[in-house]
Order: sequence, then structure tokens, then C-alpha cells
Amino acid sequence: MDISKQWTNFLEDATEEEQEMASLYLNSLKRKKSGENGTHIGALMAIESEFQEPGTLTMTIPNTEFLQNSLHILHGGLTATLLDSAMGTLAFRLLPEDKAAVTTEMKINYVAKGVGTHFTCIASVIHKGSKLLVMEGKVYRSDQTLIAHATGSFFVIPNKK
Amino acid sequence: MDISKQWTNFLEDATEEEQEMASLYLNSLKRKKSGENGTHIGALMAIESEFQEPGTLTMTIPNTEFLQNSLHILHGGLTATLLDSAMGTLAFRLLPEDKAAVTTEMKINYVAKGVGTHFTCIASVIHKGSKLLVMEGKVYRSDQTLIAHATGSFFVIPNKK
Amino acid sequence: MDISKQWTNFLEDATEEEQEMASLYLNSLKRKKSGENGTHIGALMAIESEFQEPGTLTMTIPNTEFLQNSLHILHGGLTATLLDSAMGTLAFRLLPEDKAAVTTEMKINYVAKGVGTHFTCIASVIHKGSKLLVMEGKVYRSDQTLIAHATGSFFVIPNKK
Amino acid sequence: MDISKQWTNFLEDATEEEQEMASLYLNSLKRKKSGENGTHIGALMAIESEFQEPGTLTMTIPNTEFLQNSLHILHGGLTATLLDSAMGTLAFRLLPEDKAAVTTEMKINYVAKGVGTHFTCIASVIHKGSKLLVMEGKVYRSDQTLIAHATGSFFVIPNKK
Repeated sequence: MDISKQWTNFLEDATEEEQEMASLYLNSLKRKKSGENGTHIGALMAIESEFQEPGTLTMTIPNTEFLQNSLHILHGGLTATLLDSAMGTLAFRLLPEDKAAVTTEMKINYVAKGVGTHFTCIASVIHKGSKLLVMEGKVYRSDQTLIAHATGSFFVIPNKK
Repeated sequence: MDISKQWTNFLEDATEEEQEMASLYLNSLKRKKSGENGTHIGALMAIESEFQEPGTLTMTIPNTEFLQNSLHILHGGLTATLLDSAMGTLAFRLLPEDKAAVTTEMKINYVAKGVGTHFTCIASVIHKGSKLLVMEGKVYRSDQTLIAHATGSFFVIPNKK
Repeated sequence: MDISKQWTNFLEDATEEEQEMASLYLNSLKRKKSGENGTHIGALMAIESEFQEPGTLTMTIPNTEFLQNSLHILHGGLTATLLDSAMGTLAFRLLPEDKAAVTTEMKINYVAKGVGTHFTCIASVIHKGSKLLVMEGKVYRSDQTLIAHATGSFFVIPNKK
Repeated sequence: MDISKQWTNFLEDATEEEQEMASLYLNSLKRKKSGENGTHIGALMAIESEFQEPGTLTMTIPNTEFLQNSLHILHGGLTATLLDSAMGTLAFRLLPEDKAAVTTEMKINYVAKGVGTHFTCIASVIHKGSKLLVMEGKVYRSDQTLIAHATGSFFVIPNKK
């Protein structure tokens, strides 16, 4: 049975939450196809990013069922995904065109529950060396409470693209 | 237009990769529905876990397009998700029934590229205190190379369930 | 042979550096005796601290031979000692009188060489919870370059004093 | 007044603890002079190290007043000093003669009180890359209880010596 037919069958008696997730997954494929996000996980999280001079990057994501652990709180791993994406994207942005950056380590302190309508991650630079960049990332929920704080190291490598 | 029709339309001229992702998303919804995984992210990663006495937990996931960053390497954030899940699940497993555990901090060292057919995460205990558990997690790729090493702290809370 | 006589003998043919260290050790014992510092390591580092409202603590230390590794750069362990002291002292200061704080974890990024006439550490609060405080610490050298960045968690305990 | 005379004067009415510290400081200068330890802090801690094939290093230190915080427990900063020394010494040992290693980051989990007659630190390798080594360090007290666990990254640099 082809995948289209399988989706049709599944959705016939899907719960409301399953229908919402089906919609989120479809939107994610469309975001990836259009190039709005470069990765499936970025598309699923519907990450929107904005670079601010002289060296800050903000990523915003809507809160959805997808992001939540079994207690309906933002999953610590997806918080880490947002932080790694924001710090890594900023590191890449700050390097010359022939360089890229890979995460060598990241440490996260989780300080409050991730609930609310959306989450905002702000990445900034702690140190920009020629071989290693050290970045800071903070995640806030919609009521401005800090949820998580991270630091990470990004190793500078040649950009093969 | 209902979500079923939207999926049918999208899949009419979907690429092979998009069809594979559509299949992965559908399987994920089925895994979540059946209770095989408790969270959408766990279902998307198709996490299989196994507890070993006297205190080790192994989580295995197949490598899929979903897990990969734009360089087709396991995303650092999803590596973190696997590590947090494995260490957190083991912490919870080791506590009495009236207790649960929340991640207060996690640090990850990324040491090799995540490629291959599947990934295995092994969580173990560094220290089990009455208020705080400190766990270790290691992620290996299918050729047994260590990809990432993590330590994390889990705060013991009452289990309200 | 009593310790006084041993010191006299040793100093008879001590090098200039050894005489300076002998002087530093003696001053340290005097700082400890007078209560200027509560610990021997704090006295050896000649830590001076200053609390600023509404929640920042600055610790300053002169650069001495004692602080240096074999390359004559501030020892990473003593950088950690300064950071732990500053963050821990601030945590304690911010708690009510019947509470104290113990370090449960600390992560440090070393970003530049510790050289110059003195070092300054600034501790501040990332999150103040009822059970856990998360602090940030930064160490600067005399030319204002950031040397090290740290985050740490401090568990709140009863103050038995 | 010369430093020898100052020591004599101070020791005339020194407490027993001060006399012990005077003795520890003198022994430290002798250890440094003889080359037993390469740094003053290493000499003060009276670090003895032993390398084991195929890649483990053990450092042992006696418990002394010098190591203790105001609660008479091993100071978190000196625990960090021991860990950084052990992991860094092992990293250096594992590199070819024309290479050295500098700490770029270290994270420590403190899991039990440091009390007892002596402390033992065991460093081992998590990953040995050509540019970065990731090490693990564990500190045990004399009753074999784990006190602290650390991971650290060491950047490979040319050895100028």
C-alpha cells in the first residue's frame, strides 16, 4: 500500500492531537522543501532566526505538542537542539566564508519549566578565537522567564561547500 | 481542505526523500499511539530501550534522514536528546515509585561524526544520592566508535502520577 | 629540629624566588590569623572580595609565582578555585541566614592566557531557586581580557553555624 | 627586617595549626626545589603521580589543613586543581614529544564530601584526536567513596620547550 493511502487510512480515525501532529509534520516537510529550514528537526520546530549586529542571534519557536515530554513540558533534548542550533548558527555567521564550525562541547543548566506559547533563544559570543569560539545561549519562555542557560565550544574547520 | 486531502496532494509530487520522511512521520504517530514511545520525539527517533541490572540502560535508534544536520551527520541536538532520554529514563528507573527525576544540567563532549546504520546510547550511574543523581551517557555509532560523552544531574522530585 | 630553625636554615641559601614565596607563605598565615581570609588557599591567593547590590560579587587577586603553572601562566585549577570561591560566596550571601550553599557542579571554559599584574573575578546570578542556585563567573586579567567563563550549581542546605 | 627573622618572630607564638602549616609550606618549597613537583601548588598538595599503561594516570595527595575549606572539607577549587593536573598531565604524556596540551574546558560534578586521610585522582582517556583530547577524571577519598567526577578538553599545541 502506498504511503499516501496509508496516511488516508490512519487519519480516518485519528484523534484531534494526531491530526494536529499530522498537520505539523506536513508543514515541516513544506518548510524543508521551500528552504525555510535546512534540516528536518529545524523545520519540525519551525525555527525562525534573526541575526543582530554586532553578534547576537535570536531563534524563536512556537510551543507545540511535538516539543513536549510526557509531562507536557519542553523536552530537555529539544531545548538542547534549539541552543546548539542558535549557538552554532551564530558561530558560523561570525566566521569568514571559507570557514565552518562544529560543536565540540555544550553544557546546559535547566532552571525553569518550559511552558507557554513560544520559546526564544538568544545566542551571543563569549570568546572568538582563531581556532575555537565559545558561545553562550539562553532560552526564555513567552513570559520572559529564563528556562535554560548554555555555554558551548565550536571548533573552526574549513568550509568545504 | 482537510489534513488527509492535504497529505494526498503533497505526496502526489513528493521526492523520494519526502516520501521516506512521510513514512517515518506516520510510523512515529503509530508508535506514539501504541505506547511504544511516550513522546513524539522518542517515537520519531524510534527509540528502543533496554534496562540491564544492576543499573545500566541502553537505547538504540536507527539512523534516518530525520536525525541529520545539513552535512548528513547526526545533529548535536538530537544526540543530546538521546543522551538526556537515556540518562533520565535510567534515573527514573532507579528511584522508588513515588519519586521522579528532572534534568538540572547536562554537559556533552562531541568527539566523532555520527554516521552509520544506527546509534547506541549507554547510560550508567556516577552517583546516586537521595536528592541528586549524577549520570553518565555514551553514544556509539554502528562501528563502535564513541561519538559523544555526557554527564548530567537529575534532581529527585515527588512522582505525582 | 624545630620548625623555626628549619626555616632559618632553608632561607640561608634560598634563591630570590624562594625568598618571595617564603614571604608570601608568611603573609598568608597572617591573613588567615587575622581573619582576612577564612581558608588557607584564600589567604595564599590574597583574595579581596566586594559585594555589589543587587547581586554581584567581585574578587581580586594579585598575580604571584604561587598562582602559576610551569609555563608561568595562571594555573587552571587556581582559576577554578577563584571561580568556585566567588560564585559560592555570592550564593551564600544571597541566601537567608539559616541557609548555606554547596557546589554540586561547575563548568569552566578557558579562553585566554592568565598573565598580567592581577586577576578579577565577577560572579553573578543566572537563576535563584529555592533549592538550587545557578551562578555565572568570569575571570579577567589586568588588561580586561576575559580569561575564563564558568557556570555552576549550588545546592541550598541548612546553615548549621 | 629580613624574611628569616620574620618567620622566627611569627613562629614564637604560633598555634599548633600554624606550626603545621609552616612545616607544610617549608616542605613545599623543598619539593619544588628538588624538582619533585613542577609547580608551587603541586608541591603544596604534595602530589605524587603514577602513569599506568595503556593510558591511565593516578595522582595521590595526603589530606592536610591546607586543602580544606572553612567546613574542613576538601575545597572544590583544589579538587578542580587535582583533576586538571591529572587530566592535563595524562594528556601531555600521551602526546608525542613535540606537542603539549592546554585545558580548554573542564566540568566537574561534586558528589560527596572530601574527608579522610588522603585523596586519589584517576585520569583516563575518553577520546584522543589529533587536535583535541577529551579526558575523564575521578577523585576518590581514602574509604573509596567517589568525591568528584570530571570531563575536560585539552587542545594540542606545539611544545616549545
